[in-house]
Amino acid sequence: MKMISRYTKKIGLPPGTVVHTGDQKIKAAKVSMMHYSGASCEEQALDAETDFTSLATLKGVTWINIDGLHDVSLIQRVGTAFDLHPLILEDVTNIGQRPKFEEYGDRLFVILPMISFDDHKMAIDVEQISLVFGKGFVLSFQERSGDVLDCVRERIRHGAGRLRKEGSDYLAYGLIDAIVDNYYLVLERMGDKIELLGDELIGDPNETTLYRIHDLKREMIGLRRSIWPLRELVNGLIRSESLLIGKTTRMYVRDVYDHTVQIIDTLESYRDMASSMLDIYLSSVSNKMNVVMKVLTIISTLFIPLSFIAGVYGMNFRYMPELQWRWSYPIFWLVCFLILIGMLIFFRKKRWI
Amino acid sequence: MKMISRYTKKIGLPPGTVVHTGDQKIKAAKVSMMHYSGASCEEQALDAETDFTSLATLKGVTWINIDGLHDVSLIQRVGTAFDLHPLILEDVTNIGQRPKFEEYGDRLFVILPMISFDDHKMAIDVEQISLVFGKGFVLSFQERSGDVLDCVRERIRHGAGRLRKEGSDYLAYGLIDAIVDNYYLVLERMGDKIELLGDELIGDPNETTLYRIHDLKREMIGLRRSIWPLRELVNGLIRSESLLIGKTTRMYVRDVYDHTVQIIDTLESYRDMASSMLDIYLSSVSNKMNVVMKVLTIISTLFIPLSFIAGVYGMNFRYMPELQWRWSYPIFWLVCFLILIGMLIFFRKKRWI
Amino acid sequence: MKMISRYTKKIGLPPGTVVHTGDQKIKAAKVSMMHYSGASCEEQALDAETDFTSLATLKGVTWINIDGLHDVSLIQRVGTAFDLHPLILEDVTNIGQRPKFEEYGDRLFVILPMISFDDHKMAIDVEQISLVFGKGFVLSFQERSGDVLDCVRERIRHGAGRLRKEGSDYLAYGLIDAIVDNYYLVLERMGDKIELLGDELIGDPNETTLYRIHDLKREMIGLRRSIWPLRELVNGLIRSESLLIGKTTRMYVRDVYDHTVQIIDTLESYRDMASSMLDIYLSSVSNKMNVVMKVLTIISTLFIPLSFIAGVYGMNFRYMPELQWRWSYPIFWLVCFLILIGMLIFFRKKRWI
Amino acid sequence: MKMISRYTKKIGLPPGTVVHTGDQKIKAAKVSMMHYSGASCEEQALDAETDFTSLATLKGVTWINIDGLHDVSLIQRVGTAFDLHPLILEDVTNIGQRPKFEEYGDRLFVILPMISFDDHKMAIDVEQISLVFGKGFVLSFQERSGDVLDCVRERIRHGAGRLRKEGSDYLAYGLIDAIVDNYYLVLERMGDKIELLGDELIGDPNETTLYRIHDLKREMIGLRRSIWPLRELVNGLIRSESLLIGKTTRMYVRDVYDHTVQIIDTLESYRDMASSMLDIYLSSVSNKMNVVMKVLTIISTLFIPLSFIAGVYGMNFRYMPELQWRWSYPIFWLVCFLILIGMLIFFRKKRWI
Amino acid sequence: MKMISRYTKKIGLPPGTVVHTGDQKIKAAKVSMMHYSGASCEEQALDAETDFTSLATLKGVTWINIDGLHDVSLIQRVGTAFDLHPLILEDVTNIGQRPKFEEYGDRLFVILPMISFDDHKMAIDVEQISLVFGKGFVLSFQERSGDVLDCVRERIRHGAGRLRKEGSDYLAYGLIDAIVDNYYLVLERMGDKIELLGDELIGDPNETTLYRIHDLKREMIGLRRSIWPLRELVNGLIRSESLLIGKTTRMYVRDVYDHTVQIIDTLESYRDMASSMLDIYLSSVSNKMNVVMKVLTIISTLFIPLSFIAGVYGMNFRYMPELQWRWSYPIFWLVCFLILIGMLIFFRKKRWI
Repeated sequence: MKMISRYTKKIGLPPGTVVHTGDQKIKAAKVSMMHYSGASCEEQALDAETDFTSLATLKGVTWINIDGLHDVSLIQRVGTAFDLHPLILEDVTNIGQRPKFEEYGDRLFVILPMISFDDHKMAIDVEQISLVFGKGFVLSFQERSGDVLDCVRERIRHGAGRLRKEGSDYLAYGLIDAIVDNYYLVLERMGDKIELLGDELIGDPNETTLYRIHDLKREMIGLRRSIWPLRELVNGLIRSESLLIGKTTRMYVRDVYDHTVQIIDTLESYRDMASSMLDIYLSSVSNKMNVVMKVLTIISTLFIPLSFIAGVYGMNFRYMPELQWRWSYPIFWLVCFLILIGMLIFFRKKRWI
Repeated sequence: MKMISRYTKKIGLPPGTVVHTGDQKIKAAKVSMMHYSGASCEEQALDAETDFTSLATLKGVTWINIDGLHDVSLIQRVGTAFDLHPLILEDVTNIGQRPKFEEYGDRLFVILPMISFDDHKMAIDVEQISLVFGKGFVLSFQERSGDVLDCVRERIRHGAGRLRKEGSDYLAYGLIDAIVDNYYLVLERMGDKIELLGDELIGDPNETTLYRIHDLKREMIGLRRSIWPLRELVNGLIRSESLLIGKTTRMYVRDVYDHTVQIIDTLESYRDMASSMLDIYLSSVSNKMNVVMKVLTIISTLFIPLSFIAGVYGMNFRYMPELQWRWSYPIFWLVCFLILIGMLIFFRKKRWI
Repeated sequence: MKMISRYTKKIGLPPGTVVHTGDQKIKAAKVSMMHYSGASCEEQALDAETDFTSLATLKGVTWINIDGLHDVSLIQRVGTAFDLHPLILEDVTNIGQRPKFEEYGDRLFVILPMISFDDHKMAIDVEQISLVFGKGFVLSFQERSGDVLDCVRERIRHGAGRLRKEGSDYLAYGLIDAIVDNYYLVLERMGDKIELLGDELIGDPNETTLYRIHDLKREMIGLRRSIWPLRELVNGLIRSESLLIGKTTRMYVRDVYDHTVQIIDTLESYRDMASSMLDIYLSSVSNKMNVVMKVLTIISTLFIPLSFIAGVYGMNFRYMPELQWRWSYPIFWLVCFLILIGMLIFFRKKRWI
Repeated sequence: MKMISRYTKKIGLPPGTVVHTGDQKIKAAKVSMMHYSGASCEEQALDAETDFTSLATLKGVTWINIDGLHDVSLIQRVGTAFDLHPLILEDVTNIGQRPKFEEYGDRLFVILPMISFDDHKMAIDVEQISLVFGKGFVLSFQERSGDVLDCVRERIRHGAGRLRKEGSDYLAYGLIDAIVDNYYLVLERMGDKIELLGDELIGDPNETTLYRIHDLKREMIGLRRSIWPLRELVNGLIRSESLLIGKTTRMYVRDVYDHTVQIIDTLESYRDMASSMLDIYLSSVSNKMNVVMKVLTIISTLFIPLSFIAGVYGMNFRYMPELQWRWSYPIFWLVCFLILIGMLIFFRKKRWI
Repeated sequence: MKMISRYTKKIGLPPGTVVHTGDQKIKAAKVSMMHYSGASCEEQALDAETDFTSLATLKGVTWINIDGLHDVSLIQRVGTAFDLHPLILEDVTNIGQRPKFEEYGDRLFVILPMISFDDHKMAIDVEQISLVFGKGFVLSFQERSGDVLDCVRERIRHGAGRLRKEGSDYLAYGLIDAIVDNYYLVLERMGDKIELLGDELIGDPNETTLYRIHDLKREMIGLRRSIWPLRELVNGLIRSESLLIGKTTRMYVRDVYDHTVQIIDTLESYRDMASSMLDIYLSSVSNKMNVVMKVLTIISTLFIPLSFIAGVYGMNFRYMPELQWRWSYPIFWLVCFLILIGMLIFFRKKRWI
């Protein structure tokens, strides 16, 4: 719901207006740069006053990462320096976008959710990240500091893998790959939850179980909605006719495609399991209720005929021969006992008890 | 249902007959014009007797907006002046159309619902709007005065954004964009309703909750039916081979496409939530009922064996030794108490109470 | 079911055999002709012995309408005169066909249901109509007299609309359009039924409501099955590469396409509503039952403890001090009253009553 | 299930191995031949030792029909004579295949189920039939004697229809058409079953009704699985680029396509009806149970307060003034009667009885 | 769930890193080789120190099979010798992959699950197998020794079928075919389970039946997830434009395609059956409960009016004429008997008993 109210902030503004629709998550925007070309690699923190235009013409590959999207003027200066289309800038600052891949001439634009599991807060953490890349540069825009991209930074620093040898397209791929890889962690946690709920279902399901199954389902609907368009996005990268994406990179992107398909597959089977759980829950609740009703009704039924007999001999008719008999009372108990046994046998035979 | 009875008005008439099938919503049709070209911009209210033919040949971009569709002769005169196909005119006056985009040679025709949320009446307000555009002009036809297009008018007046620099295609895009943007507001209100219902479900659901969930579902079915074809419509605009739609505009239309996809996505998750709510409602009702039945039956069951015992000692047999014993009565109470305790422990152990 | 048994009549016959599989609905086949070309228009009733071959070569547009399909020899003579493929003739007389559009060289063949609502019988009336058209002629085959095409005849007579100016393709379009327009009437009646059922559901649903909802659903399944293939049919007409269908006609056929899509859309939402009704019915029945059970059980439960107490003081123990007390009886009533009040308060607090 | 165990017979064998996986249904394979060309037509029963190679080069059209698939060597000889691909032979003898159409160079191969309704056994009878045709010959392989193709044989004998005038492609079409036509009979029988079940549902549904609805559904799932791929099969024939299939035949095959679509449509509506029946059954069972519970509970409830009153005056308190009154007993009955009437009125007003 | 935690092991590693994510299933990797060319065939067990480079250039077809994926250096040496892309090696050692077919230049790569039914453990056994083939060689990588490929080995040894005559593509096909054939065995076992459960359902369903149906469903979801992508995989092989796959092989692969479609079809109908079972189970449980409640309630209801009458004559009113009558007591029993008979008749007539 929150996502939608964000959009309503922008109603009436001309298209291409750069407005930050998210919450401001960090105090000041932070800009950092990595620049490498084969052997060399340098890293630098930039301040907001940097002249980005000079960076746009560097040789090698330049990766500029911007944390914090509320500083609209900074983003616009970056946009001007790297010649980005106004619609790119609008989307970058517009939180709650659907994942997508778009080509604006020789600038390729990717927007996707960075989902990670925060073990301290025990909660899923979603942040929107936008990547723009062109010849020799990658720009990444995040809502706040702290991300899942440190492994890529390490690889650049140490020259591990192919990163230093390839162009900006491979770096963009590397970032997307790192982000998608982290989805597995979230799936793992979700799988743990499903397992826990499954154990609870067999053990002692109660009313909160129902709500928790539904919460899980809602979480999965949300996740699915974020991840489903990823397939299309990655497919777009593979099929793009842009010369920016080299043959090697394309082959690696295919690998990311496999991952997204597998993640979607896994989510689908999680959904099936959750539905299955709901079914089991409902029928186990109804089973339990049935057992209760059955036992209780059996007890009631056993005593009703007995009560009737007792009632009969509580009548005050003047002429009731049994009342005077010597063995009436013991016989009464015997009859009660026999009726009880008879009914129990009957219930047993009908497999009700 | 109303929509269909509108159509039955037209059965038997030759195709291309211009008949207004809606309700007349304003007294007299109102025609207004905006004309701009780069620097200049003029605005004018026209009366029904204007010679529209002269307007059709103006330089720059002319936007003629007509409020009220019941004045069929006016619409036909506009149609003749701008050389519109009879089928366009038929569709313009035919209320309850499915959103669509159609090309009639060098006149492009778009029909879509203008959905807004009227905060005074607390109700969704649907109005059909038709846009026809060709080289240098945009015609918009609405059912009544008052619309969501004032932001576009403002932008034309003040020359904000690109509007004044681009052609009629960009103006048409701007109008569609403004209309689609307003759907977010409706979604937001719908989201509020869902949230309220969700709270009610956890708090104290009653029979009206069911009806309201179903009402919500019906509303969403209706909305979905209006919005679903929009995707196709916008896609048609993007893929149109008409030379009227410039490259820049096409890029911006892609943005509208993203919005419609997101709106549809949101509606789909709302539907999932509503279904989920229905499930929760039904199982919570059944849970509540079960609890009632359980407690009541437990009370009944507790007393049935006790009543039996009381019945036994109400019997009038002559030879019942217990009746004469000194401590029978206190023992009776003790036995009752023990049975009660025993059954409570049994119920407790079985986790029924 | 009936439809299928019709087909079994034909098993084993060579393909292209002309057999009438429907019921004979009128005594004798009736043939009528309209012939027009621009200014002139003549109308004629033909008898079965007419030489159709001469009609096939008339200038202008000839529309021959045949009511009654049991006169196989007549149909075969018409077929020979107008050079129709045997499979066309087979399909014309074979009642219960799926709507379809087929091209046999320069003869285009359309088969579709003519659905109208008979207000006298209060029932939907389905009749199969086949149209074959080629250069300069349209043949229409109906099961019986009386149809929804009188509006087209009027337009030909009075020269209203474009009909007299266009060729046989436009006439065929006009017939299809008139037939499709009549579906709206059926939808309207169906909508009325749904509204009535909806009112009944909120008012006083009973067992027949269930059957009627199911009847409605079955009717809609049937209608949907007839109408769904129409979309394909009309699409076939639009995409046909036959030179017979002129550019103007094609544009108008697009309009019919919009209508069929809208009819299908409406049927789909009717289905959704019917499903929704079923849900409401089922949960309202179960709600009502629950209320009954609840009230009844509450009454039972209230009296069970009281009966127990009464039972206790009906016991015949010799030593029961209370029996001798002066105020025992009033106190008994007081206790009963207090227990009753207590339980009512308890039930109230639990919100069961 | 049976179908699968057939396949397991073949695990580990090299592809192209000809193994009969079905049950042997007739004692000895039976081979018969029909040969015709325009005017002449001869029929012949062949024995297993015939030299098939000479038959492969006959002028005109040769149709060889083989009943019984267990004689693998016979089939292999036929295969060699007519130059069939090993995979064709493997599929011919492999019972339980999915219907399919395949091209092996200039041999076209069709495998489809021959479903007929055996009125003696009152059961559906499924047999796999394979057709292979090339220039001048058609081979048909069946599991046993007796089939639905006699109508085709008759037409060949008497020269009815086009059969004698066309080539082997038209004969193959004729066979497929005859087989597909017979599906209508099965559908008719299934329709009868549905009607019977429907009547039972309204009359007196019992537990076996449920099982029979499920049996019906299972039967339909099976049938659907056999028939669904037919559409693709026939479509394959229409779109095949093989020169073997002439233009005329292609037009006729389109007719078979229509039939398969109609059969599938019918099956789908049968499924809808069966689901609908299940819903009606379940809610009618629950309705019936509810009625039982309601009436029974009402009776119980009526008597509980009365029993309480009777219990009160069965108490043995010494000071109970009413016990001594002259009219107590009649008043007691009056009170009982009033309470009863009151409760009945109350129930009536609440519409419970 | 396990599958996902495997992936999380790899997060942060550069793409193309070869890491074994599965469990080590055998102590030491085992490498064996078969080499054949037309007439000759030799078989050899290799040790880990073999120089694989020399094997890569052998004439004829070389099949190297590696059991055990934990020896990453071995796999990398094989990879280098046969010039495999790093992503192939990464996928080979990465357990839990989705089945897929990929082309890396002139190396074709297939990954698929080898599912077999272990009759000793009575459990499904899933192992990931990867096949890489290029001109003259096939490499197969398995998690442990023991597979379903012995039938292929036998055929190579004895020169049965076409294997020895064809190239490496046909060998790869043969391996895939053998693996897919084994799925039928698993389906057969699953079919047995379904049959057993079906019998149990009709006989005596209990709570574990529900859990077992759900277990079955989950198993089928898992299996479906493994098998569904196979269709795409095989289709990829058929449509591949690689020159490595000869025309003959392509024809045979089409056969595998048919098998996968049939397996998927079978799984789908199993799912339908399982759903059907769930429905039957639920309604039979509810039926059983209803019967219990009905009988019990009937017994209760029968005695309640009788108890009331007994209560009446247990009252201590002074003036109760019946108490003094001579035949009161026998009449009481008669009345009780009549009431009982009456109610039984009533119940009978309403068809409740």
